[in-house]
Amino acid sequence: MKALVYHGPGLKALEDRPKPELREAGDAIVKLVKTTICGTDLHILKGDVPTCTPGRILGHEGVGIVDSVGASVTTFEPGDHVLISCISSCGKCEYCRRGMYSHCATGGWILGNQIDGTQAEYVRTPHADTSLYRIPAGADEETLVMLSDILPTGFECGVLNGKVAPGSTVAIVGCGPIGLAALLTAQFYSPAELIMIDLDDKRLDIARTFGATHTINSASGRVIDKVKELTGGKGVDTAVEAVGVPATFELCEDIVAPGGTIANIGVHGSKVDLHLERLWSQNISITTRLVDTVTTPMLLKTVQSRKINPGQLITHRFPLDRILDAYDTFSRATDTGALKVIITA
Amino acid sequence: MKALVYHGPGLKALEDRPKPELREAGDAIVKLVKTTICGTDLHILKGDVPTCTPGRILGHEGVGIVDSVGASVTTFEPGDHVLISCISSCGKCEYCRRGMYSHCATGGWILGNQIDGTQAEYVRTPHADTSLYRIPAGADEETLVMLSDILPTGFECGVLNGKVAPGSTVAIVGCGPIGLAALLTAQFYSPAELIMIDLDDKRLDIARTFGATHTINSASGRVIDKVKELTGGKGVDTAVEAVGVPATFELCEDIVAPGGTIANIGVHGSKVDLHLERLWSQNISITTRLVDTVTTPMLLKTVQSRKINPGQLITHRFPLDRILDAYDTFSRATDTGALKVIITA
Amino acid sequence: MKALVYHGPGLKALEDRPKPELREAGDAIVKLVKTTICGTDLHILKGDVPTCTPGRILGHEGVGIVDSVGASVTTFEPGDHVLISCISSCGKCEYCRRGMYSHCATGGWILGNQIDGTQAEYVRTPHADTSLYRIPAGADEETLVMLSDILPTGFECGVLNGKVAPGSTVAIVGCGPIGLAALLTAQFYSPAELIMIDLDDKRLDIARTFGATHTINSASGRVIDKVKELTGGKGVDTAVEAVGVPATFELCEDIVAPGGTIANIGVHGSKVDLHLERLWSQNISITTRLVDTVTTPMLLKTVQSRKINPGQLITHRFPLDRILDAYDTFSRATDTGALKVIITA
Amino acid sequence: MKALVYHGPGLKALEDRPKPELREAGDAIVKLVKTTICGTDLHILKGDVPTCTPGRILGHEGVGIVDSVGASVTTFEPGDHVLISCISSCGKCEYCRRGMYSHCATGGWILGNQIDGTQAEYVRTPHADTSLYRIPAGADEETLVMLSDILPTGFECGVLNGKVAPGSTVAIVGCGPIGLAALLTAQFYSPAELIMIDLDDKRLDIARTFGATHTINSASGRVIDKVKELTGGKGVDTAVEAVGVPATFELCEDIVAPGGTIANIGVHGSKVDLHLERLWSQNISITTRLVDTVTTPMLLKTVQSRKINPGQLITHRFPLDRILDAYDTFSRATDTGALKVIITA
Repeated sequence: MKALVYHGPGLKALEDRPKPELREAGDAIVKLVKTTICGTDLHILKGDVPTCTPGRILGHEGVGIVDSVGASVTTFEPGDHVLISCISSCGKCEYCRRGMYSHCATGGWILGNQIDGTQAEYVRTPHADTSLYRIPAGADEETLVMLSDILPTGFECGVLNGKVAPGSTVAIVGCGPIGLAALLTAQFYSPAELIMIDLDDKRLDIARTFGATHTINSASGRVIDKVKELTGGKGVDTAVEAVGVPATFELCEDIVAPGGTIANIGVHGSKVDLHLERLWSQNISITTRLVDTVTTPMLLKTVQSRKINPGQLITHRFPLDRILDAYDTFSRATDTGALKVIITA
Repeated sequence: MKALVYHGPGLKALEDRPKPELREAGDAIVKLVKTTICGTDLHILKGDVPTCTPGRILGHEGVGIVDSVGASVTTFEPGDHVLISCISSCGKCEYCRRGMYSHCATGGWILGNQIDGTQAEYVRTPHADTSLYRIPAGADEETLVMLSDILPTGFECGVLNGKVAPGSTVAIVGCGPIGLAALLTAQFYSPAELIMIDLDDKRLDIARTFGATHTINSASGRVIDKVKELTGGKGVDTAVEAVGVPATFELCEDIVAPGGTIANIGVHGSKVDLHLERLWSQNISITTRLVDTVTTPMLLKTVQSRKINPGQLITHRFPLDRILDAYDTFSRATDTGALKVIITA
Repeated sequence: MKALVYHGPGLKALEDRPKPELREAGDAIVKLVKTTICGTDLHILKGDVPTCTPGRILGHEGVGIVDSVGASVTTFEPGDHVLISCISSCGKCEYCRRGMYSHCATGGWILGNQIDGTQAEYVRTPHADTSLYRIPAGADEETLVMLSDILPTGFECGVLNGKVAPGSTVAIVGCGPIGLAALLTAQFYSPAELIMIDLDDKRLDIARTFGATHTINSASGRVIDKVKELTGGKGVDTAVEAVGVPATFELCEDIVAPGGTIANIGVHGSKVDLHLERLWSQNISITTRLVDTVTTPMLLKTVQSRKINPGQLITHRFPLDRILDAYDTFSRATDTGALKVIITA
Repeated sequence: MKALVYHGPGLKALEDRPKPELREAGDAIVKLVKTTICGTDLHILKGDVPTCTPGRILGHEGVGIVDSVGASVTTFEPGDHVLISCISSCGKCEYCRRGMYSHCATGGWILGNQIDGTQAEYVRTPHADTSLYRIPAGADEETLVMLSDILPTGFECGVLNGKVAPGSTVAIVGCGPIGLAALLTAQFYSPAELIMIDLDDKRLDIARTFGATHTINSASGRVIDKVKELTGGKGVDTAVEAVGVPATFELCEDIVAPGGTIANIGVHGSKVDLHLERLWSQNISITTRLVDTVTTPMLLKTVQSRKINPGQLITHRFPLDRILDAYDTFSRATDTGALKVIITA
């Protein structure tokens, strides 16, 4: 089968690889229908993710059709249309029983990282009963690809951890796909203000069409002042960090109101300065989280009941044999305007 | 009346000052019965608290008897025995209505800071209806001095923010009075392990008598390893920072388990390194808080029902005219073994 | 001044009464601009509310302009435009400090019940600092009359107590003004299904325009079956009782899913059958609540930020000297289609 | 093997039955070491549990040693010492993923009810990975039998649902084993008052030794007055119903304070009167729950760290071949003083 293979920093290729086989009793083999590329895949290609070794098929998102199942799989059978979660969850370990699937003792984020992933014609998914989700009849499968990772990530790490509430004020720093997923799902809770902050005016324009009440281009150098103006001088109840560098996290420290929350989504490569000399008395919370995908069933219901349309995050579409073009388009997002690119297997 | 007055960094004196008078309709004048000295008073004397200007009577803790009340005070009358909260709360502003009294628009921590405090024969307490608490008949008033600041601080900032729960594992870094107050109140929730960490073996001995299940002298250089050994390699569910320097906060970053909480109590004078390059995926929370004293009524009930005896924090007693000796004893705690010193007015 | 006075069961009159005067230091006198009639006023007129004695001016809702304030009022001054809460809250007692203003030791629902109310040219409002809310500049004051009672009641008793959540299923039994207020505010949380149940097809039509996803006329006799059909056989996560009779409460018992909540809003005059022989094992919650109006500041923000338009509940308008016509229109709602009637003072 | 078999209302026998065999891939066969008898077993013998048909081996509690495991079991292997939960949980279905194991689509309370149970030498346990719990080395296995059902039931249905909190007031109606389990676990949260109510003075004496702060014999006819006296006229924050008849539930309605919770544990055979004509405005919650055993890991930690000793509930011990005597002793608890009887297999 065709598969996109990582060959070390800066190196990737579309290759022929053998179709995966069942190994554990809980496995399923899924024939991919649609997959996509994540910002994390670009991190891997930079060499930033040491757990992902050369030879690995990339990709941890997608929808497909069950091809075969292991002996202990009871929830799915061949032919079922399924959503593949970026997080594999055994359902048995202490962390899974606590709803913290991201830290599953034998799962977590392993697809396209420690085991072969979804940018291929087929993928082996461990713990299938508790890591795949049945696609409701009549659903738009392409839209549901957004529920593999980006939507639960924006929602769990940004919106739930950030305690977004009716009438509250929210700022999201970063208008990439993850920041926009947080923007979409924040609206489940009807905040009064949704301020989007980015350096790219085109993304800020998109943010407005996605429901932002205000946008601020941080190149202006007056972000803090502008946020204070919009919030009666207090700062925001929720500041979501959706970039992953010290400057944006520290901006969140500057704009969070007393009693507020900084919800980190960004994948950070270095430490940041935490200004406790000022924040110790500000009654704030800071949260971090690798997505647990524990809200996937809820998100499926909100998509099915048309409370949200994550399909609007999709900007480009490619067949699997043009996945290298897809990577090129996705990695030059500033030029191409790419948010999420769909790859049809 | 006699009063302990701050005269700038390093300078204090016991002086005669006029008895305070009612200014606002919500004020009360309280005749002090017992007061105490807080670590924060020592910070003021170092010059670390710019809001506290020379000439200020220090002190924000104490019990006393209402001497007179302003026109709008309805809850108290002269002769009532009352506990004075370190936090003044108007009960009307947005923050007070949210239970965040520490950020009261016209209150917060002002006693012995922005207005004259309790280390005197009398004190004027603003917002008396909502900043004083009636002392139940038969209560041990000396013990209740611990409820002005130290007990709600340890409880709200350390235990509640730290989400201490039955069966959970807790480490408290710092065995000073605040750390010990957190230790006492953490036991309201029956954690499985209560690990106390300090450099002073004498304080660690005290911690054991106060309910610590394990103690670690951090001079050993093996704190992280030892905490991991005690927690099955995971770290603690709750790490309470009760010192206020970068090294102890960063120790908390090293010992908190995935899914855990770092609850900061310490008053910090400088920024700390937050290792997001490791913690971004660890599903942790970090909280800060200036005590709100919103739990004072609950704490009064737990003392009255003998669930806790905060009186065990009291090590020394002085009359008001020997308050300079009390300061000396309290400030040389390593030598004197002082935890809380009671001053009788 | 003109005022609508209760004279015992079935008796009311528009009369001349002296303008109220300040009595307590915390009082304000408010000149009414707009008021309205509540279903509870009709209960009083039936003789169902023994705390309301003949001679009482009715009404507990309205917006107005502060005319004078008592000595201890610090938040408002004459000329301020204010929303009058149906609940008076002292801000000092144990219940107020817990956010349970409905049980305020010296307040609660007293306006138009135990003291004279708002269906008059002027009203005396006790505890003004904590029972009035400043109207933001530029707000539509008529719309804000809905925030005196009906909107916080639907929201707190129905939506918050009912734990409405994104993707959840909700049924509201009763499409009167309170049920519709619950319908409007439930949408703050983006439930997947919002099923409205009533006997009146016209009200069900209105419910659809207000955001109901499904409506069921309970005259059909097949309500339980239909709810089960709409919820995959499980019943609803949240069943809101917004009528106040045994039959509707017991319907909620029949349609709530395992793990769900029955949130009672209705004012009940008799006991109901609770079928614990079936429900003991169903992991449900039942909640009751007299509105606390603790969410009024939040609701003001949602109206200001246009997340909700409670003005759509207003169907009729009358001047104060035609308030008897207003009562007639409101009490014959089935014929007149009245939801909320605005009375201009 | 020997087994205690139900033969219809009033009929039971100790018989020879074939050793159970693995049926599903997730099954384990466990050799019983210790089991016990539950009040629910007596309900079955009265004919009150129609799902339990004649021929069934009774019992849903116990500790044992894994004898064999099905093909998909990954957590346990033969020789492991395990605690058997009264609730079987698949870990995969919607309810299990929400932590509501009691309503597991293919589990729940099935042991000794819909499938053969633990009052035998061996038992087949479905969903072994997620329904058995490893016994820590050195644990007192007899004590842990209390964690199969009674302790999580008292804790989840009574204490957690009842929101017991430091300083709060709690009344538990019924001093049987379940009420006493609620009493023991309520102390995890340090309530100020723990009032036990029963008709049997001997059980009230035991309750005092287990930590009750007050006891009331309900034969006095003055229960409501006495509870009001103990709570400043307000009633209790938490009323736990641990009997299962209308009179005791309605007593809870009479003693719950405004803002309080009635947590039902009792298994009810008939409806009760819910006095909404009084309670509609009292801001109370009523909860029901079939135990989920979701807290079993936490309870294991509290036993291991000696925060609780559930072994004190054990009053009698019998070998399996004298189980009929054990039933006799347990069913005549008033005479024998039996709480929990241990049966050694």
